Amino acid sequence: MGRIYNLISIQDLSRETIDLILDTAHKMESVAAERSNELSNKIMAVLFFEASTRTRLSFESAMLRLGGSVLGFADVTTSSAGVKGETLADTIRTVERYADIIVIRHPLDGSARVAAEFSAIPVINAGSGAEEHPTQALLDLYSIKKMKGKIDGLFISLCGDLRYGRTVHSLGMALANYDVSINLAAPESLRMKPAIVDEMRKAGLKVREVNSMDEALKDADVVYMTRIQKERFPDVREYTAVQGKFRIDSDDVAKMKRDAIILHPLPRVDELDASIDTAPQAKYFDQVYNGVVTRMAILKLILS
Amino acid sequence: MGRIYNLISIQDLSRETIDLILDTAHKMESVAAERSNELSNKIMAVLFFEASTRTRLSFESAMLRLGGSVLGFADVTTSSAGVKGETLADTIRTVERYADIIVIRHPLDGSARVAAEFSAIPVINAGSGAEEHPTQALLDLYSIKKMKGKIDGLFISLCGDLRYGRTVHSLGMALANYDVSINLAAPESLRMKPAIVDEMRKAGLKVREVNSMDEALKDADVVYMTRIQKERFPDVREYTAVQGKFRIDSDDVAKMKRDAIILHPLPRVDELDASIDTAPQAKYFDQVYNGVVTRMAILKLILS
Amino acid sequence: MGRIYNLISIQDLSRETIDLILDTAHKMESVAAERSNELSNKIMAVLFFEASTRTRLSFESAMLRLGGSVLGFADVTTSSAGVKGETLADTIRTVERYADIIVIRHPLDGSARVAAEFSAIPVINAGSGAEEHPTQALLDLYSIKKMKGKIDGLFISLCGDLRYGRTVHSLGMALANYDVSINLAAPESLRMKPAIVDEMRKAGLKVREVNSMDEALKDADVVYMTRIQKERFPDVREYTAVQGKFRIDSDDVAKMKRDAIILHPLPRVDELDASIDTAPQAKYFDQVYNGVVTRMAILKLILS
Repeated sequence: MGRIYNLISIQDLSRETIDLILDTAHKMESVAAERSNELSNKIMAVLFFEASTRTRLSFESAMLRLGGSVLGFADVTTSSAGVKGETLADTIRTVERYADIIVIRHPLDGSARVAAEFSAIPVINAGSGAEEHPTQALLDLYSIKKMKGKIDGLFISLCGDLRYGRTVHSLGMALANYDVSINLAAPESLRMKPAIVDEMRKAGLKVREVNSMDEALKDADVVYMTRIQKERFPDVREYTAVQGKFRIDSDDVAKMKRDAIILHPLPRVDELDASIDTAPQAKYFDQVYNGVVTRMAILKLILS
Repeated sequence: MGRIYNLISIQDLSRETIDLILDTAHKMESVAAERSNELSNKIMAVLFFEASTRTRLSFESAMLRLGGSVLGFADVTTSSAGVKGETLADTIRTVERYADIIVIRHPLDGSARVAAEFSAIPVINAGSGAEEHPTQALLDLYSIKKMKGKIDGLFISLCGDLRYGRTVHSLGMALANYDVSINLAAPESLRMKPAIVDEMRKAGLKVREVNSMDEALKDADVVYMTRIQKERFPDVREYTAVQGKFRIDSDDVAKMKRDAIILHPLPRVDELDASIDTAPQAKYFDQVYNGVVTRMAILKLILS
Repeated sequence: MGRIYNLISIQDLSRETIDLILDTAHKMESVAAERSNELSNKIMAVLFFEASTRTRLSFESAMLRLGGSVLGFADVTTSSAGVKGETLADTIRTVERYADIIVIRHPLDGSARVAAEFSAIPVINAGSGAEEHPTQALLDLYSIKKMKGKIDGLFISLCGDLRYGRTVHSLGMALANYDVSINLAAPESLRMKPAIVDEMRKAGLKVREVNSMDEALKDADVVYMTRIQKERFPDVREYTAVQGKFRIDSDDVAKMKRDAIILHPLPRVDELDASIDTAPQAKYFDQVYNGVVTRMAILKLILS
């Protein structure tokens, strides 16, 4: 039921399990401040085959606040996996002997699932290829619930790169568990994959695809912005045109509901203009902290 | 006697000391599971001048399970030693002020010995050049003893690259302390150095050099396989020929004794075919865990 | 008063605060040996945008000896800050959610100050650009006080690269708080910036600029040597000439006072000949340890 072992895809989780994680995250708020020794005999291995600041440090902060220890690598070029051509399966079958849980980020789709299949200890997917980033989706849900008091009934706009951004894929699938209205605001070439749109519609969500930020901002309770990467565009002029359209500045914020919130998985480039950082709607840095308590909840539920 | 300070070469250890380490490793099995605070006021510095997953994480896991802390570098390019041309002696004379023990891996032969000479704190060699990897040899001995119940009286085949592989050098010298029969199975150009063969013979071991895996597998109690590196061969065709001969697949396993064990220091490439991973003889991943308890024993014996 | 929040520039500290840090460092000597749990619920983030062995490991050793935990990065290429072009302000506003204190090294002048402006948690400058390295200056002062029994009244020579070396800039400004006589010995092109010389003179210090080591060594109580970097010179012959002049060997040591001390922020190349390492005046490796207790004092004063 509420019992979690691996955390590979948001689709593996029932609404019940998601709610358990969010409730546990709420309880972790006081533990995060006070610190605990609950996991003092546990070791977390972080295997980061891709660069990261936020996700790795967020997991480490979560584990340390629960009294646990951390080992691993942040840079695959310093490991046998990078240098000596070891397979992922062999790396996992090795590292499972050193730790109690594995947190893995890897550039290939399906990698975290493969890791879990070979692992004798629980595996958490900290970002696999372009497809999934389930702990980000969970911290996004937690941020929405904490800041808006609920998830059901909200009007949520997902904006920017909806095609290659793994965070919006996981978040979209997570939201399919709730009774929400969704706006998808993306340039033509970066629209959400039909499979995920279908999933959300099949779950009964009202999903509308729009192609301007104006439509995404108007009436939204939550605006979830993402970064558009230059390298997705063959022609730099096309990138510039798109980038100029899918961003939020103070004029845009003025059109939003006063009690709306703006979230972003970060890092941002300029899709969130620095001038809006002090707006009451700007919640993307508070969202970072929610990542710590959400990951504390996940680690606690899996390990204790 | 049983007292250990540095651990630089397997040749520095008496049979008595080796046995003490293996006995202590056995005692560490329960401590590894439960965790202890025995070294909670100790800091281990890991100085890895060469890429590693297994050895570094294994030492870190061992230290954490004993309650200790870890600092250091996994990548010399982020350190003054790499960037600013500091000598090894100066790096050691610095790091000895930050920690209670140094674990060093370095590409140069003799580097760990130099480190120990300059260090005011104990030094453990985690792999120096092509010559020595004593903690690997100790975990190999521990694996043999744990899995076969004894070391004396066994028939042990060392296979693959016996010339450049530092693990087999250390293991060969370690086995000279025991009453075992040895098969050395290597391609002509990768045969064990005569000095080590002499050492083993002088110690009274029956050593036979063979050049096929068939002879190595037949009647062996322990088959210790190693990786043959492509870059050792000027001609890639020669490498391919050799590589095809010095590997183990399911047909080979069928020729082995039912209660024989296959060990490998890992990472492997394809000298151990994935099809044998589920064979009862395949013990190379269990061997990984033995590295944790063996290193716990070494850290405990040196530091407490 | 004695209360410290950030530590960005040595110029932000009063003599009173500096003395408090040095006194606390002295008290840390026994804590460093015994270890404490005083900061066991605190996390230190190390953000090293530049290579370092000494400073990072010294801070980590200090934090671990006080029972605290550490996370961060030693290599910016493994972080979003390096790879995804995140601004320093955004990195700080993220990391402040993961830790209780930030220790930052960054290649740009002013970077640590910027970090502190954006941070909701205390920031310690572990080296910013060519301008400042305040914790090094504090450990240098502590070394002088510990080894000479006092700072006031001493005759101190700062030697080598006084223009680009951030450690001598911070040390020069720190010494302006004391009643000392200063010799500045540097090649013409690497002389101390007039602003710092003026600062010291305005504070009442007797400052003399000399251009030979002989004048710097004679009568000095403290000789503070620094490394001259080849890349500062357009012409390698000029570098070689200068390097041959601004170094210390056994002949030079013979000209020094018997109770003088030689300090160096390390790493050294050959400005301190290895032959002098055993001279009674050579204190640069003991100085390393003083960095641990000084940083323990700073962490304790800020965090507890």
